[in-house]
Amino acid sequence: MSDPKSRNIVWHEGIVSRADREKMAGHKGCTIWMTGLSGSGKSTLAVALEKALIDRGIRTFVLDGDNVRHGLNKDLGFSPEDRNENIRRIGEVAKLFTDAGVINITAFISPYRQDRDRVRALMAEGDFVEAYVDCPLEVCEQRDPKGLYKKARAGQIPEFTGISAPYEAPERAELTLKTGEMSKEETLRTLVEFLERKGYIPA
Amino acid sequence: MSDPKSRNIVWHEGIVSRADREKMAGHKGCTIWMTGLSGSGKSTLAVALEKALIDRGIRTFVLDGDNVRHGLNKDLGFSPEDRNENIRRIGEVAKLFTDAGVINITAFISPYRQDRDRVRALMAEGDFVEAYVDCPLEVCEQRDPKGLYKKARAGQIPEFTGISAPYEAPERAELTLKTGEMSKEETLRTLVEFLERKGYIPA
Repeated sequence: MSDPKSRNIVWHEGIVSRADREKMAGHKGCTIWMTGLSGSGKSTLAVALEKALIDRGIRTFVLDGDNVRHGLNKDLGFSPEDRNENIRRIGEVAKLFTDAGVINITAFISPYRQDRDRVRALMAEGDFVEAYVDCPLEVCEQRDPKGLYKKARAGQIPEFTGISAPYEAPERAELTLKTGEMSKEETLRTLVEFLERKGYIPA
Repeated sequence: MSDPKSRNIVWHEGIVSRADREKMAGHKGCTIWMTGLSGSGKSTLAVALEKALIDRGIRTFVLDGDNVRHGLNKDLGFSPEDRNENIRRIGEVAKLFTDAGVINITAFISPYRQDRDRVRALMAEGDFVEAYVDCPLEVCEQRDPKGLYKKARAGQIPEFTGISAPYEAPERAELTLKTGEMSKEETLRTLVEFLERKGYIPA
């Protein structure tokens, strides 16, 4: 048949449900919300998980400072109100991606428990997976990949999480990834096995 | 092998590119930006296109008033500034979905040319497909599916597009869908054939 498929297009009433999208994709949508100190390994781990999932044909996408702070949230600064609004919007976008059947991975410090719990409350049970990237401050500060701790200690960055602003560790995270102790491969395997075990992706 | 796939997980350096995601999906990501009067058929057409694409295994998602106005943009009202910000944020989210390799379809009146052109400017050439859902005001008003024109004529809705606020028709839309003249099937076919012809999806 040389006819393009569009010849056979027929009009269907009714909307596509999330279940339809997930059935077509062969896996569920969810939000893996990475939280942890600067330098704890959130972005590195998010990118590695994205790669591991893509290699298995799973729809996935990383939301991070690079694609959010310079785009959707470029009107926001670092005041307490703006920080709240930053996380709120990211949560709403993560919800849209989840509804779209995508396993989206967010990599933001998101230091306040209340902000994270608000995002959790936006979503249905099971859609929000809080992954605590738990690395001791000393280790993060020693790594200091962006030189931010040095600047914060020198007083050049006000309200820097862990130094001059609090980090509120999760109390009921679905996953805790001790990136100061575990190897990269171990942390990645822990994440993927969690997704398999809970039925988000096929084993 | 009864081992879960996670046993074989190895750590890869390097990020997943949009090209990787598109290759895996077998189609490109883009934003189909439907614009037109209330009652012109944007949402109906968006939903039908979503269904037609999903049936072909294509990743797609509709952004509309239902999932945006009550979520991401629930803090926005209908002042000129808020309307601009509404469209700006939708454009940024559409860009994220496009980068994720999803054909996302937006269904908002988006009456101002400047707002739409700003969204176009956010994206790479070819990523933004403006689809003018062109239906005469008289037809839209006769349909009046939500009873909004009646209310607007009665002065109960201030600044209603087409009645008491302008609609600026696109000057360089990639597609014009005359929903007052064409059948539903024809409009849908026009959209799908466009996506095939331009190589967004396989023919």
